[in-house]
Formats: sequence, structure tokens, C-alpha cells
Amino acid sequence: MTTVAVVGATGAVGRTMVSLLGERAFPAEHLRLMASARSAGASLETWLGEVEVEDLAQADPDGVDVALFSAGGDRSREHAERFVDAGAVVIDNSSAFRMEPNVPLVVVDVNDEAAGHHEGIIANPNCTTMTLMMAAAPLHETAGLVSVVVTSYQSVSGSGQQGVTELLGQIEHFGKDIDSMMGGGWEEPGLGVYPRPIGYNVLPFAGDEQEAGYTTEELKLVNESRKILSLPDLAVEPTCVRVPTLVGHGVAATLRFERRVSADEAMAVFVSAPGVALWKDRTPTPLDSAGIDDVLVGRVRETIGEPGGINLWAVADNLRKGAALNAVQIAELLV
Amino acid sequence: MTTVAVVGATGAVGRTMVSLLGERAFPAEHLRLMASARSAGASLETWLGEVEVEDLAQADPDGVDVALFSAGGDRSREHAERFVDAGAVVIDNSSAFRMEPNVPLVVVDVNDEAAGHHEGIIANPNCTTMTLMMAAAPLHETAGLVSVVVTSYQSVSGSGQQGVTELLGQIEHFGKDIDSMMGGGWEEPGLGVYPRPIGYNVLPFAGDEQEAGYTTEELKLVNESRKILSLPDLAVEPTCVRVPTLVGHGVAATLRFERRVSADEAMAVFVSAPGVALWKDRTPTPLDSAGIDDVLVGRVRETIGEPGGINLWAVADNLRKGAALNAVQIAELLV
Repeated sequence: MTTVAVVGATGAVGRTMVSLLGERAFPAEHLRLMASARSAGASLETWLGEVEVEDLAQADPDGVDVALFSAGGDRSREHAERFVDAGAVVIDNSSAFRMEPNVPLVVVDVNDEAAGHHEGIIANPNCTTMTLMMAAAPLHETAGLVSVVVTSYQSVSGSGQQGVTELLGQIEHFGKDIDSMMGGGWEEPGLGVYPRPIGYNVLPFAGDEQEAGYTTEELKLVNESRKILSLPDLAVEPTCVRVPTLVGHGVAATLRFERRVSADEAMAVFVSAPGVALWKDRTPTPLDSAGIDDVLVGRVRETIGEPGGINLWAVADNLRKGAALNAVQIAELLV
Repeated sequence: MTTVAVVGATGAVGRTMVSLLGERAFPAEHLRLMASARSAGASLETWLGEVEVEDLAQADPDGVDVALFSAGGDRSREHAERFVDAGAVVIDNSSAFRMEPNVPLVVVDVNDEAAGHHEGIIANPNCTTMTLMMAAAPLHETAGLVSVVVTSYQSVSGSGQQGVTELLGQIEHFGKDIDSMMGGGWEEPGLGVYPRPIGYNVLPFAGDEQEAGYTTEELKLVNESRKILSLPDLAVEPTCVRVPTLVGHGVAATLRFERRVSADEAMAVFVSAPGVALWKDRTPTPLDSAGIDDVLVGRVRETIGEPGGINLWAVADNLRKGAALNAVQIAELLV
């Protein structure tokens, strides 16, 4: 008699959570959907029939067994505690609790066992971290990870629906005026969620500046990777870049280990890693990852500058494994 | 009484060469334009008036002092020698001769002195290498470069006009059918110069596969960097990625040196580096580099995983500093 609640049910990640719960035949008898007052009253089609969206602020958490939160950090900080007090386990997709010592940060197929030690809240990692971890963890298990240099190619849906709208609006703004773009005479498009244009452009700055010139998004990659892998001293050099793609977060990573790892060994590891699909003959791209549960790994190469490490590329659907899928997989661990 | 020839004058780089020669008041009395038979007979407007395009195969190189070649490696291999035999210095933008021991590979403002040792041919480096070198060389001069991890964000104009046409065509193909892209139900667009879609996508594979999984484009970054900096053992880990931008090649680089370099020191170096503009308060993007001669450097950060190095971002107009501008600058060194 499990009751599952999806909080932030009308957002891109929330809607993906609802459809994944259905697709994966999650053993819930009751589904409750919650969102801000603005969205309350609407009805969503689900595998349990039509369900009306409740106003989160008014919703009584009594009876909820598992609550999947994807409504932003502020809402998580405001409401997660009362769900926990009412007996629910909260799986939170925001960054609000990720670094709390008593909150497990779980990538399913990487550190599932951590989920057992929760005190009511389990955190879902950052979408780019998730992609990196799915590729790095199986190799870490084999050879002991020492350092990671990682650069990202993050899609606009990582910034929510606003990011998608902004990219499409700017593509339309620039239109076919190629000469002005290429010659530098382009007209500034309207800006919203991003501080600089993202249409026909890349923005090597994601999140807010935090310390020593690094952004929130980059420090998540450092701190969350260390926590997930239980490697508090892992050396991570992060650069996060937004690119004009709609879905799929890619990472290029240079990985070094306690011992030499060959490309053949690394590829053999990926072949048997759960949740990972190794592409050997084609290069996986963000569009290939859209709608796919697996993290796609390709371009596995031995390092050539300083031998012994691995250079690779990994890409995942940031709305699925990068967010909704992993949250649903955590819920599956609980029931 | 200098005569300059532009070979491949009707291509994107060739046309930029012609306009830069005029903009920069290159001291030429005569300008000759050459291209394939297909383009011969056309007239181009230049700072020396209208000039008719000659058929390269038929053109007599007699009297040419400096020939700027940007017509692809095959044409360079076929025709450069007869220009040299006729007394011209050939500045070649293709990869045909770059690694020949008797051919200097010159980034102006980095290793100008190398240009003095030519035997008739001087090679213009790869566009991504050029961007990296302009940022790495001033720091190398100060602190001794030891290793580079570099990932690129390369625009489609690096593949010529076909790349531009392919991106725009695919943007139109995908249109506003956002749901199918985001859900994975997208229809394959027509492919031409790229083996996978580039519209709303990134392609972490540039050039052809060469050895150990690395591409031609990646090995250029390794080998050309070593030659330009006279560092035959420089450790370079390259990953080249094509992104859906029209112009501007960006690189994210992790640089390590013989000694510790602080962010402040690195930024002070960039402030006085010729041909480099340091952006401190805004992040330079590919669109910002369009039509600009300087290489834009930003996001200068001390490494946080293993302290002592520098993480940075650099971006340059691949048709200007990345190709035509540097070639014209080499020509300026000669006259």
C-alpha cells in the first residue's frame, strides 16, 4: 500500500518522474502530485489515471511513503522536513541537502548501499556529476581513481523549461542572419536565464560564481564526486560549459588511477557496468542519449601525454539518469 | 613592388585573407586571386579594385612574392612547390607541410623568430592549436609548460562553408519539434560533412580516426603544440568536439608548469601578452570572438584538485586568428 508523491510534478523533471514511475511499473497504489499554487488544480494523465495537482503549501503529507522532490532548493528546504516528520522518505533532486553529512548522496549502480543510511532524506546528485560518476565509478572500483580533469557540454534543459525557451528564442532571433553573426555585427538577443547568448554560442560559465573563480556547478562536480565515491581527497579540475543543445549532458574526462589502466581493460569494465552502454564504433552524442536510460560512454582512449590514464567521453539524458530516473531508481531501492 | 597571391580566394578563409590584407594595409602593389577552375573567371572586390579569379591549375606563379594558400592539403601538395620554384614564399594554411622539419610552423606573437628559417614554405597551424597556443605560450615563457589537458568547442565554419550549411539545414530540419528531440524520437537529418547530426547536438569526434582512438584533429593539437613551443616532450591530452556554433573555436585547458603559478600572476601575464585580451568580469564566448583579432582569455583559475596549475578558457575567431589573420601576420613578418 505504497503512496508516492511527486513534488514539482509539472516541471520537466517532475513530469519525467511521473512517466518513469509508470514505465517502470513502480509498485505504488497511490500517486499524489504537488506543485506551486499556480499549477494546483490542473490534472495530469498518469499510469494510475488522471491525478489532480495539489498545492504543495497546503498539501498534507500524511500517508506519503516516498516523496520525490524536484521543485528547487528553496521549496525543498521549506517543505522536505514536514514530509519526513509525517513518515515519508524524501528523495530530493535539489542541491539543498546534498552535502549534509547525514544525507546520503546516491547514484544508483554506483553507491546504492549509501541509501540504507538515510535519516529521512536521500539526495539525488547534480546531473553532470551523475554522468561523470557512472563512467568514473566502475573504473575507480577496478583501479582506484586519483584525479579527474572534466569539462562539460551541458544542455539548456538543465536550466529547466526557461533554458529551452531561451535557446529556441535566440535561434529564432539570429534567424538566417549568418553574416552578422560570423562578422561580429550581431544584435544582442533578449537574455533571461543565461547572462550571455546561448543560441549559436557556448557559455563557459554555469551557475553562479562561488570561490576562486569556480562556479556553483563546478564545485558540485568536485564535492559531490568526492562524497559519492567516498574519496575526500579526490583531485578534480572542473570546467562547466553550457552548449546550445536541448537535452543530454556530455563530459570529456581525463582520469588517472593508482595503477596503469589500458583502453581494453577500461572498455571491458564498461561492457559489464550496469547502467552504462559502451559505444565502440560510433560516437555517442547528446541527441543519442535523449530518452535513453543508460549513460553512453565512448571515445575510450589511453592517455597519450602522460601514459597510464584514460581519456573518455560520456553523455546521458539529463532529465532521466541525470535527474528523474536516478530519483525513481532510489525509490525502487527503498520499496 | 610586392605581389601577393591568395590561393583558394573564394573560400571562407581565402575571402577573409583578402579583406584582412586590405584592412591592415598590406604593402602589396599587386594582388592575384586563384581558385579551382569552377570559380575561375569570377571577380572579387578588393582594396586594389576588382580582381579576376584565375584558375590555379593554369596560373603562372612567376612574379609572385608571397602566396597565401588556403585551398586544402591536396592543392597545397600539388601546387606549393611550383610557387616556391618561381621564387614565392608560400604561407600554407593546410596541414600538408606543418610537421615537415624544414617548414616553420608559426603563430605570430608566439614564435615569430621561426619564420626566419624557412626554405620557401611556412605553415599556418591548425585553428584550435592557434587558440590554445596564444593562451599557453605567454605562461610557458614565464613558468615552463609541462602538461596540457585540452578539450575544444569548435565551430562548424572550421569545416568550411559546408559545415555552416549543414548546421543551418539541420536547425531547420529539427524546427520546433522539440518534443521529439527531447524524447529521443527525432528523425535523422541529412548528413554531409559530419558523420552525426550537429544541429542541437555536439559531436565529440573531429577529423578522422588516426591512432589509438585519437583523431587527426586531436593529434594536430599534440604535435603542433610541441613543435610551436619547441617542447618535443610536452604532455598533451586532447579531446576535440564540434559544437553547433557558426564561428569561434573555444578551448578549456588545464595547464601545469615547472613551478606554481597563481591566478593573479597568470592574469598579469595575459594583460601584457600581445594578441591576447583578458576578460575578467565577463566570460568571453565564441560569438564575442567573431570578427575580433585578439584571442579572448577568461575564467583564469588556480587548479583546485592538484594546486599549482591554471585552468582557463580561451576563444578566437577561427577564420581570423585561427586561420586568415595569422597567415597575413606571417606575410607581414616577411615584407
